[in-house]
Amino acid sequence: MAADRTQQRPAGAARRRLRADQARQLADLLRQQVLGQVFAGGVLPHEDALGAEYGVSRNTVRQALDLLRAEHLVERVPGLGTVAVGQKYPHGLDRLMGLAETLHGHGQVSNEVRALGPVRAPAAVASRLRIKEHDDVLYIERLRRLDGLPLSLDLTYIPMDLGIGLLDADLENNDVFRLLEQVAGRPLGTAEITLEAVSADLHSATVLEAPRGAALLMLERLTHLSDGRPVDLEFVRFRGDRITMRGLLHRSS
Amino acid sequence: MAADRTQQRPAGAARRRLRADQARQLADLLRQQVLGQVFAGGVLPHEDALGAEYGVSRNTVRQALDLLRAEHLVERVPGLGTVAVGQKYPHGLDRLMGLAETLHGHGQVSNEVRALGPVRAPAAVASRLRIKEHDDVLYIERLRRLDGLPLSLDLTYIPMDLGIGLLDADLENNDVFRLLEQVAGRPLGTAEITLEAVSADLHSATVLEAPRGAALLMLERLTHLSDGRPVDLEFVRFRGDRITMRGLLHRSS
Repeated sequence: MAADRTQQRPAGAARRRLRADQARQLADLLRQQVLGQVFAGGVLPHEDALGAEYGVSRNTVRQALDLLRAEHLVERVPGLGTVAVGQKYPHGLDRLMGLAETLHGHGQVSNEVRALGPVRAPAAVASRLRIKEHDDVLYIERLRRLDGLPLSLDLTYIPMDLGIGLLDADLENNDVFRLLEQVAGRPLGTAEITLEAVSADLHSATVLEAPRGAALLMLERLTHLSDGRPVDLEFVRFRGDRITMRGLLHRSS
Repeated sequence: MAADRTQQRPAGAARRRLRADQARQLADLLRQQVLGQVFAGGVLPHEDALGAEYGVSRNTVRQALDLLRAEHLVERVPGLGTVAVGQKYPHGLDRLMGLAETLHGHGQVSNEVRALGPVRAPAAVASRLRIKEHDDVLYIERLRRLDGLPLSLDLTYIPMDLGIGLLDADLENNDVFRLLEQVAGRPLGTAEITLEAVSADLHSATVLEAPRGAALLMLERLTHLSDGRPVDLEFVRFRGDRITMRGLLHRSS
């Protein structure tokens, strides 16, 4: 499948490198189809059929399927073949939405509130939320689940004048976004986001029921009300095996 | 710093859990400042100062700094303290841009072309690019570096009528986006993107000079010309320790 530019290398090493490159290439095309749930019954075509379709050897097909297995996207089922098992949920990148909003139709979001209460705002929080250093902010820590399985661990800071209205709210079953809009009496406006891929430390992995070192999608988000006031500073660790971020980019700004 | 809801637990376990939670909380605030390069000379405040500022014990501060060290964002330098060493480069999420464009001013992007040539389009590629199955597409595989250090591994498929114009182009020093616009004689329009966090397989890690299992930011991007024609299907693995994606989201669509 890949064009071969490795003629200068020793035959064995070149073959191994070429096969590894081709396996990655094939795995990327298959993972897209696995996540898009295009295979009938979730069963992937036979290795020989994949080899013929993609013009690669059976060993390359096996190596590609190994890559997807390592990502827990497929499994081998005796008598059936390779089946899609992983499912990632699409989190919209085009509009500012809470988790329950964006996953509407994909399952039930529930939140385990691990911490809730006022804390003295450190300088780094105060400056982002434009409050006075050492004023209180409401700190909320939630483990968020989709259909019972951990999806993300969210650390949230909210100015206390709004946060006070959230203390008695049903945080288990509502997005903070929706509650904030109710308490503030106006809609949210924009949010500055930063996305990174990080490896899970031991404790975060334990909380998220993921293996230590698992890839996490880390989101930092500073959300403003429609009048521009920053009201919600969040640090969210999504399990990489359970979420994708989807959006549409435009060439002209 | 965190509100303590752990009173029901055994004292030792509760203390460890509380400290781990507080360390994560502190690490998130510090990592934001490390990446924002706000510390004078890159040197973080002394552990005691951090403990006082954030209202946590010295052990918690140390545990937080351990988390940042594990991410290769800080190092301990004898006689100096903890210094910021990691740098992540911001990739814009607001506009569709090539890597050299978006990192303009952050360093020199160079591309090692690992593969270049026509391949028979598998069905999964043909349908996305709206070409006939088994028609040729141009396959380009590039290891992209910023100031000499690996940043991403890009697998790209381009319809052959446009791809033919890229075969003799200077792919080492130019974004494919810019070359495509030249060849097509019209600007790009929009791109559908999907972002995920994945763990690096051994071979990808080797190519990217990252540890096996390192967190990668995986981008799948289908880019269209301004007339709507899909012309560029890409699978990009960014090193998670070298890139962040930044954007602005709006509440109303």
